[in-house]
Amino acid sequence: MKAKIYVTLKQGILDPQGKAIEHALGSLGFNNVGHVRVGKYMEVEVNETDKTKADVTVKAMCEKLLANTIVEEYRYELQ
Amino acid sequence: MKAKIYVTLKQGILDPQGKAIEHALGSLGFNNVGHVRVGKYMEVEVNETDKTKADVTVKAMCEKLLANTIVEEYRYELQ
Repeated sequence: MKAKIYVTLKQGILDPQGKAIEHALGSLGFNNVGHVRVGKYMEVEVNETDKTKADVTVKAMCEKLLANTIVEEYRYELQ
Repeated sequence: MKAKIYVTLKQGILDPQGKAIEHALGSLGFNNVGHVRVGKYMEVEVNETDKTKADVTVKAMCEKLLANTIVEEYRYELQ
């Protein structure tokens, strides 16, 4: 199974990378740009056919390594 | 409109960050992990109600700033 994992900063946490992109887009002439938030996107192949087991594994991966749950939140899709 | 943009390395381009995560997951005891690919995920608010115009704008942003189209590919969803 393949897991698509999205890790983003929690609401209210300052996102300097997003701000930098916002300014850069403005400088390039994109004047209709509002907020920009930046996160990580990961595709992880899990050698597991059972969806429930894969779900438990991916959740554990996110909690232990892929996301810093103090400032980040994550969501994932299994395919 | 909000654009959700996913930027990933093209197939065949070495992804050292993905490899590092693969090894780290292995060290943490996740033995059923296959390939890992890492990319960027961005949420951009575009002050545009017309979907076609927003589409053109977001495509231009990706080509000019958000993705390095030599080694990266991008896709996006408009909401």
